[in-house]
Amino acid sequence: MAALSFTLTHTSARSAARAGVIQVPHGRVETPAFMVVGTQATVKSLTPADLRELGVQIVLANTYHLSLRPGAELVARLGGLHHFMGWDGPLITDSGGYQVFSLGFALEHGVGKQVGMFPAEAARGGGPRPAQGQKPKLARVDDDGVTFTSHLDGSTHRLTPERSIDIQQQLGADIILAFDEPTSPLHDYDYTRQALERTHRWADRCLAAKTRADQALFGIVQGGAFRDLREESARFMAARPIEGFAIGGSLGKSKQDMHAILEWTVPLLAEDRPRHLLGIGEPEDLLEAVERGIDLFDCVAPTRYARHGVLYTHRGKLTLTNAVFREDPGPIEPGCTCSTCARFSRAYLRHLFVAEELLSYRLATIHNLHFILSLVRQARQAILDDNLAAYREQFLQQYLSAEC
Amino acid sequence: MAALSFTLTHTSARSAARAGVIQVPHGRVETPAFMVVGTQATVKSLTPADLRELGVQIVLANTYHLSLRPGAELVARLGGLHHFMGWDGPLITDSGGYQVFSLGFALEHGVGKQVGMFPAEAARGGGPRPAQGQKPKLARVDDDGVTFTSHLDGSTHRLTPERSIDIQQQLGADIILAFDEPTSPLHDYDYTRQALERTHRWADRCLAAKTRADQALFGIVQGGAFRDLREESARFMAARPIEGFAIGGSLGKSKQDMHAILEWTVPLLAEDRPRHLLGIGEPEDLLEAVERGIDLFDCVAPTRYARHGVLYTHRGKLTLTNAVFREDPGPIEPGCTCSTCARFSRAYLRHLFVAEELLSYRLATIHNLHFILSLVRQARQAILDDNLAAYREQFLQQYLSAEC
Repeated sequence: MAALSFTLTHTSARSAARAGVIQVPHGRVETPAFMVVGTQATVKSLTPADLRELGVQIVLANTYHLSLRPGAELVARLGGLHHFMGWDGPLITDSGGYQVFSLGFALEHGVGKQVGMFPAEAARGGGPRPAQGQKPKLARVDDDGVTFTSHLDGSTHRLTPERSIDIQQQLGADIILAFDEPTSPLHDYDYTRQALERTHRWADRCLAAKTRADQALFGIVQGGAFRDLREESARFMAARPIEGFAIGGSLGKSKQDMHAILEWTVPLLAEDRPRHLLGIGEPEDLLEAVERGIDLFDCVAPTRYARHGVLYTHRGKLTLTNAVFREDPGPIEPGCTCSTCARFSRAYLRHLFVAEELLSYRLATIHNLHFILSLVRQARQAILDDNLAAYREQFLQQYLSAEC
Repeated sequence: MAALSFTLTHTSARSAARAGVIQVPHGRVETPAFMVVGTQATVKSLTPADLRELGVQIVLANTYHLSLRPGAELVARLGGLHHFMGWDGPLITDSGGYQVFSLGFALEHGVGKQVGMFPAEAARGGGPRPAQGQKPKLARVDDDGVTFTSHLDGSTHRLTPERSIDIQQQLGADIILAFDEPTSPLHDYDYTRQALERTHRWADRCLAAKTRADQALFGIVQGGAFRDLREESARFMAARPIEGFAIGGSLGKSKQDMHAILEWTVPLLAEDRPRHLLGIGEPEDLLEAVERGIDLFDCVAPTRYARHGVLYTHRGKLTLTNAVFREDPGPIEPGCTCSTCARFSRAYLRHLFVAEELLSYRLATIHNLHFILSLVRQARQAILDDNLAAYREQFLQQYLSAEC
């Protein structure tokens, strides 16, 4: 049996949107799906039981972080990542490429690759930030792989396609990603092409290195905001015997750029395999990307916003610490069915945030994940009902009309 | 109907230990009971639903902290503390005395009262610590009350018996405490007597100020480690029309001192009313105090230890961050029935602590509260079975034999 099967349940007549079902060893994922991020083998502040209650279908964990701490070998000896973190549902690990390249300067070509230079993926949050007063961490790419400095202790490490697959096989997620070299909007055409070619060679090396039959491999399409490169990369990946596609790297400098990149790329990706847009998670982006044929998303935005007291509502984002909520007896959003809104007022949540109480992060995270997961679930239903465009219009009109 | 009724279910023939039931407007509390501390209207990292699952019977919140933030008037306008924090079970608030006096110097008599000077209550944790480099905060006591500086913003506030009762009435807990002046082991006999006399006058002012019939008032016995003062204070409180007693202030310099103070004090406290030992929570102390007739405890130790990765087991406390647990696949304590031990290994919990993940604090807090609550529940059962001494011996022999 294949590690992954993908069934298209319904394809929209009026757009590239589709609803499907992914089956992997640890369960099924109804797509479009939002994958919650558990960088260090935990979705910050939540237990696996909380994730189940929220309707989370699949969790994304981080090869870079977990290989440095606690170490992939240790996780393997303890029975693999599912057992280690107590999550028995579908899991995906990224390849470490994004985190390694966001570490520091790529010395050999003098182009900065510091954190924050990958706007499209910045919200993905894997990228470690240099501590204040520290020198920027360094990553040096060559055709074989990347040598980089750990953000934890400054020790030197090496990541190659083979090592990335080795780590991901030890972690044992249902879906693993090929090791890639993402580029930023500051990279020129020539460098983006070089990185693209490396990414393609590395994808084939990942395919060759992979031995576990119970894991599905996704290849990552690169090419920045350059149409011919994106198309070349999409055609390259579509021709590979991989179980799915991810779209990574620079998605340009605006939402229009991102839409264009999706419109160039997605039609070239074989329809029978799932498509994952890396690191994108704003509500408006999710809906636009679903309409352009994306099946899977991951993003730290909902959980990171939550920890800063920024909460999603259908009328835009709300910042709980604002004084206006000091005595507000209502829930974050009236009508919301999450366990936080069922039990706690804005005034209480604001108090928890102002007092820097640990419970604040958890309650806010529950609300934000509930919001995003519901949005994607409703988008899926709208696809099935053939009215995604109307759903999107209605949602965005309200969502973008006002910031609470 | 009285705000509090106390039924003695069983009194030990061989010691002062007793098992009882307290009934207050928001429910019943089987004693001896450990009251979990929710200083800022939240037990750190846990929801009220978690507390129910843990079998928490009663929560202690903090007058000092809540009056400064978010303010008692605000809590009252939002329906009172139960509604505000989403806990519909029994609640107790302390009077603010301990926190106010632990703020800084009592200028008028030149004796330091900084945090850390009340060893018996240090683990109670209410006392704010001056930030590094900050000048010590100040509190000035007079016969009418205390003027003190907020640890939050340096603003000046005044707390008197009447104001403490006013705040506690606005918060609306089932049980409130009289405003007192605790003393430290560094205070001499004369000052301890002065403070005691103030505490007694203030208790009568609290009684006079109290207007809510649905709240029970406990008086606080002071007197430091001086036998005649403790006895005088116990007799004074026993003669007052209050619903219960708390024992506060300095409990001497050793466990032997604490035991002696309990042995002087408890027999003088009317048997028909519950006795609360303020700020004590180490397992060995709980059992010794139960045997000496204490019914109620509160302490931040279990939750504070948890946040530092220090976990209770029947073989002593275990520090999860120790390297020895790096690959340990077992639970914190084999046989433990808490939800953390049911699902997570020491290796995973250690990883969460080392990675400073939010979930670590929550999972460890659940285990530690489960441990302490179970201990006190089992002690209660042992009282009912007339074998508390044997239970205590057996527990302590194992508990004190080894640090894991």
